[in-house]
Amino acid sequence: MKGLDEFFHPGSVAVVGASRTPGKAGNTVVSNILEFGFEGRLYPVNPGAGDVLGLRCYEKLSDVPETPDLVVGVLPREKTPDLVLQCSRAGVRHLILPTAGFSDVGEEGRLIQEEILSLAREAGIRLMGPNSIGTVCTSGNLATSIVTLDRIREGGISLFGQTGMFSSGIARWIDTSEHFGISKIACLGNKADVDESDLLEYLSGDVETRVIGVYTEGVRGGARFARVLKDVASRKPVLVLKSGRTETGRRAIASHTGALSGSEGIFAGLIEQAGAVRVGDFEEMFDCARAFEWQPLPRGNRVGVVSITGVGCVLAADCAGEFGLEMPIPASATVARMRESMPRWVPAANPADIWAAIEAFGPESAYTTVSRALLDDDAVDSLVVIFTVIPEAEMDVKRLFERLKEDHPEKPLAAVLMAGDAGMRSQWKRSLETSGFPTYTSPERALRAIGAMWRYAS
Amino acid sequence: MKGLDEFFHPGSVAVVGASRTPGKAGNTVVSNILEFGFEGRLYPVNPGAGDVLGLRCYEKLSDVPETPDLVVGVLPREKTPDLVLQCSRAGVRHLILPTAGFSDVGEEGRLIQEEILSLAREAGIRLMGPNSIGTVCTSGNLATSIVTLDRIREGGISLFGQTGMFSSGIARWIDTSEHFGISKIACLGNKADVDESDLLEYLSGDVETRVIGVYTEGVRGGARFARVLKDVASRKPVLVLKSGRTETGRRAIASHTGALSGSEGIFAGLIEQAGAVRVGDFEEMFDCARAFEWQPLPRGNRVGVVSITGVGCVLAADCAGEFGLEMPIPASATVARMRESMPRWVPAANPADIWAAIEAFGPESAYTTVSRALLDDDAVDSLVVIFTVIPEAEMDVKRLFERLKEDHPEKPLAAVLMAGDAGMRSQWKRSLETSGFPTYTSPERALRAIGAMWRYAS
Repeated sequence: MKGLDEFFHPGSVAVVGASRTPGKAGNTVVSNILEFGFEGRLYPVNPGAGDVLGLRCYEKLSDVPETPDLVVGVLPREKTPDLVLQCSRAGVRHLILPTAGFSDVGEEGRLIQEEILSLAREAGIRLMGPNSIGTVCTSGNLATSIVTLDRIREGGISLFGQTGMFSSGIARWIDTSEHFGISKIACLGNKADVDESDLLEYLSGDVETRVIGVYTEGVRGGARFARVLKDVASRKPVLVLKSGRTETGRRAIASHTGALSGSEGIFAGLIEQAGAVRVGDFEEMFDCARAFEWQPLPRGNRVGVVSITGVGCVLAADCAGEFGLEMPIPASATVARMRESMPRWVPAANPADIWAAIEAFGPESAYTTVSRALLDDDAVDSLVVIFTVIPEAEMDVKRLFERLKEDHPEKPLAAVLMAGDAGMRSQWKRSLETSGFPTYTSPERALRAIGAMWRYAS
Repeated sequence: MKGLDEFFHPGSVAVVGASRTPGKAGNTVVSNILEFGFEGRLYPVNPGAGDVLGLRCYEKLSDVPETPDLVVGVLPREKTPDLVLQCSRAGVRHLILPTAGFSDVGEEGRLIQEEILSLAREAGIRLMGPNSIGTVCTSGNLATSIVTLDRIREGGISLFGQTGMFSSGIARWIDTSEHFGISKIACLGNKADVDESDLLEYLSGDVETRVIGVYTEGVRGGARFARVLKDVASRKPVLVLKSGRTETGRRAIASHTGALSGSEGIFAGLIEQAGAVRVGDFEEMFDCARAFEWQPLPRGNRVGVVSITGVGCVLAADCAGEFGLEMPIPASATVARMRESMPRWVPAANPADIWAAIEAFGPESAYTTVSRALLDDDAVDSLVVIFTVIPEAEMDVKRLFERLKEDHPEKPLAAVLMAGDAGMRSQWKRSLETSGFPTYTSPERALRAIGAMWRYAS
């Protein structure tokens, strides 16, 4: 069996079922590949289509002038067995099937899925899907999604799993709301052939991928998955969102991809033993991804917190233990340095409530003095700085974080932009994140991400 | 002791310590009151200030030509006992003290706090604070906050508690990111006198307040609080965010407001028995507030879910039980109606995955047919509709929700805008929420809000 690289870096792609009609999946795949600036050869295939989006359209796969490295088959279910036979005859080794209606709809579909799988296995074809929305590879200028995508930002985060969301809504969300970038995306759908373990092995060796995010509804071959996950997680962080925690959830999964979800307890233990990071939802996945992608791993679990507001200190302190973090008491030399921009009468502690310091010395001086002092303390392994985006706190946040990074490039930093003006908040987020400093909407989210890094590191 | 109405609807306000210098708290309070369009009499007081923001400034409180209904005292700590005496002599009955440095900083401050409290009690003065950022009342055109505020949207949600965030960053956040409105805000600070029970009693009788949100770090007089909370919660929903769940949190609270946080177990039981709604963070508070403010209470715990994506169905189903909700199997007549816009081969179930229906019939028809059928089912008490904001799903979402509301005004509705384009997402949010349909960023958040309504209703 060949590897998976052609799903992401093919030299040539044929789209079987290419369509001239905008809005049809067979049209969208071709237009996405063009939009992403694919530099290889692209062959639309469809009897009688003439041309598709300015490209010559071939009547049959066998008319294509080379053996394409990758075929995307946008065809109704009943035509898919024949497509696999055509691929087999043409020597194709990689096939993506977006078509739904197989194990995701019940017994009849499951039987057809078994048929195409055994045809593919005989021919040595790696099959992604069926029910796969497609793949994305930013460095390969490729998007095989059947849902319209704009070209997305390149980066070190790769995502895959049993949802089409990664190649559609989530890719759009990341590109329009976030500032990190994507390396590869793969939607596994019913995963008749290519599954989580295959993707993990592939991404483990992929130098472009620094952080992996997985969504799964349940894995087959638990022993192999456990072994592969442990191996990959020892090289790079793997964030796992697993559904099917409850009976109602498992019932919904049966009609989504037909996966068997397995025991929640066994899965939880497996993730923990593998050293992977379990996340509870997509927001938490990207909260963690941001931190892992941009910041160094902490060397210990002791976190410093600086906050404009007492409630920020309290909420951070309240959840620290839950995420395996401690809040050390600063050394007396640290306290003396913090005091340089704090009124005498307020406590200089960790977490540090600096509202009175901001009133007395201004935000720039209060944040800078207190944050640098805390970060310099040997008892502090990471620092979370909490802002409320109000006129009284306006300052150059990016400059503050750059100084902190200069002081201690080995200690992870995070900013919390807690409430305040919406427009100013997204400006601050952009300013910090385009320089590699992750931001969060609440203290809990920031501490959860730092806690995940610590558990991964330790 | 007089009531609390003058903190929100005073006929006259004196700001002692009013300042001509922009950025100073004594200037901001006056400018906020003007910005909010206060229609009563406003008297800046400060020896030698001449005028403040175009208003005549009085040298002493005793020079003000009437007894002001409310005094805001923006003075250093050491001058506050004398201010209370001046208020007493002038017959003032309501005083807000933003000054910090009392029980929030330790023993010395606590003693001064006791001194001013006993002076206030002798004179029959209700004292809010010290360490209170101030109050807001939209119908009274009043904001006494020491942090710059723009005028905010009027509505039925009132917020109070031991944080300045409600009168600063959170008010700004709500006004620039949300579409619900505020009735009243009160920041209780160290709550030497006015406390949670007082505010609950006041807001219980306030016809403008339909939903109450509270942040507390620990209550004094637990028996009274339990009694008042139970009474208020029987009239209107009360959302409670309580910190101090952990030892580290309790340590941070001691240096924030000096409150005694009490036992987590006892507090949790108290909230539950009172029929109030416990929330875990501010985001959850506003997720719930939106639903309670705009939607009817559900008559049962059976929720219907319609989703563009299988993962939406699975995530919703997975957490339903956690929030006390069930997902009923639709009646066969309902299934037949859903089938009118679903291909024959896909399952018509609850949760309903309608991606194939959207591909075959378009988003307008698929969402409308399936949602109306499910909502009509007697086994369904509330409906959550999940969208991913991508070009393939563009439709008039507001029209869909208005039709659903026409069909069943008695059943609560919620929309999930899960991932997709940021700009389009905020347009959809605005379009739905300005018509009273709450939106959420994930299925979990929507179901948690519906679950909170159900537990409150039952």
